[in-house]
Amino acid sequence: MADTVVLCGGVGAARLLTGLIQVVDPAELTAIVNVADDMELHGLHISPDLDTVVYTLSGQVSRERGWGLEGETWQAMEMVRHYGGADWFSLGDRDLGTHLFRTDQLRRGRALDEITTDIAAAWGLTFRVLPVSNDRVRTMVTTVDHGEISFQEYFVARAHSVPVTSVRFDGAADAEPAPGVLDAITGAERVIIAPSNPAVSIDPVLAVPGVSEALRARRSSVVAVSPIIAGKAIKGPADRLLTELGREASVIGVAQWYRDLIGTLVVDDADADRAVEIEALGIAAVATDTIMSEPAVAAGLARTLLALPIGR
Amino acid sequence: MADTVVLCGGVGAARLLTGLIQVVDPAELTAIVNVADDMELHGLHISPDLDTVVYTLSGQVSRERGWGLEGETWQAMEMVRHYGGADWFSLGDRDLGTHLFRTDQLRRGRALDEITTDIAAAWGLTFRVLPVSNDRVRTMVTTVDHGEISFQEYFVARAHSVPVTSVRFDGAADAEPAPGVLDAITGAERVIIAPSNPAVSIDPVLAVPGVSEALRARRSSVVAVSPIIAGKAIKGPADRLLTELGREASVIGVAQWYRDLIGTLVVDDADADRAVEIEALGIAAVATDTIMSEPAVAAGLARTLLALPIGR
Repeated sequence: MADTVVLCGGVGAARLLTGLIQVVDPAELTAIVNVADDMELHGLHISPDLDTVVYTLSGQVSRERGWGLEGETWQAMEMVRHYGGADWFSLGDRDLGTHLFRTDQLRRGRALDEITTDIAAAWGLTFRVLPVSNDRVRTMVTTVDHGEISFQEYFVARAHSVPVTSVRFDGAADAEPAPGVLDAITGAERVIIAPSNPAVSIDPVLAVPGVSEALRARRSSVVAVSPIIAGKAIKGPADRLLTELGREASVIGVAQWYRDLIGTLVVDDADADRAVEIEALGIAAVATDTIMSEPAVAAGLARTLLALPIGR
Repeated sequence: MADTVVLCGGVGAARLLTGLIQVVDPAELTAIVNVADDMELHGLHISPDLDTVVYTLSGQVSRERGWGLEGETWQAMEMVRHYGGADWFSLGDRDLGTHLFRTDQLRRGRALDEITTDIAAAWGLTFRVLPVSNDRVRTMVTTVDHGEISFQEYFVARAHSVPVTSVRFDGAADAEPAPGVLDAITGAERVIIAPSNPAVSIDPVLAVPGVSEALRARRSSVVAVSPIIAGKAIKGPADRLLTELGREASVIGVAQWYRDLIGTLVVDDADADRAVEIEALGIAAVATDTIMSEPAVAAGLARTLLALPIGR
């Protein structure tokens, strides 16, 4: 067994997985995905990160938007708008089908991990996609101007453009890891923290009891890929959030964030000059091309990750 | 004031309303609509009869299918099927927008009648559309072969093709009429019972406490239009249900059903020869063309209804 586990947010993680499935046996790959961006909207249970991972890895994701589905239409949302309803979170008609199925199955008493397995199987995915927990965890963001708001209100409705003072994960303390999560982390040859937002995508995964402890226990073979390149996030507010939460918006800020959990930080070539500072934190630094604009780059990054010595 | 109130199921009632709005001031027209066909599906609150009335009267109803919307697409349902989900009740993408809006508003604590007013207004309807109750009432059908099932399971999933032994309206005894329902019935110049299914569309309206009593108190100016023509229902299982529930599948069965509630029964010309039998039940009988295949026929029927002497 040479199992690989990836802790995942949405888009950045999905891109990394696109690389990994080209170079590892999918049967030996497990994605453990954030659920704290999930929400109930119009009565439906929506799991944006799980869907981004599944849609991307099944080749269904819209190449143009980078989220949602190819061939999407927006008839339902046009009607919601017609009625003056809440249209700040756009739900495509095809995407709605996923939420209808998930919500129906949850109401029949099935667990999120079982439903996710069905959805992944329907798309022909052969690696394992696990929500980090079947329980309700919700990222709550305290903003300067609007008080505490939900992650989606921050991210979508406010276009992540409002200053943040703190983040917490409602329900995390009482959440149980989904079946298989801790075993996967403990039993894997390597654990990779995807280049997702540390503050709002990876931290809520780490906040589920047992996950951080399991990483810490095998810190030397845990590697993170920095989502910050030359001080900027490729996408989203990771850079600004790091600053707002008192860190440097740089690979050093990322290294400090994960300091007690990782043995290695993979940074982009643009940040190769920060390697000494990273190593000074007791973390090995590796520089490579991490801008996964094409599947070939993602595969190259995956190969680099898998070539890292274990227990370095 | 010459207010007209119509007790409504779905398609038959919507056609009659199409006629009435051609010949009365919409400001003086109130449709009181069955909600016992409502259901929760995939987490969404669906109100088929309210939607049929609103979609039909706003000219949005699919002419081809007679239900649902023009320009409808089915992308969400294709995805539900892709996942192996419950697809027995087809929800179009545009239609889903209505259910998303309604469900969202209900979850915000608004009442069904307020939401219905918003939906009707968005379509420019100028008459009043009232759910008979804001409370949960559900038609339950006891079948010979499948025990007690919900109305939609009977009507859609079983294509109303299984024998029925009884019908009850779960929740009706504890339901309150929506605000304005009893006042509308009491204050109207006339009350019309639409040519909807007596057993499963009108009876659940009558089962809401106060409605039957209000009709009985003004019986002479209550008129029903028979949904049975020459022993057959135009659409749906009204004829078979009447027989299964121990009545004659004819205008006589309809007259007996409504006997203590109506002063007049309007029947199709095809049933003119049954007038004497109807009158023998203490109900005035009027024969006219009731097959509302075109708006002009519906308008003609509406004119006949409005020309009936009050308190005859």
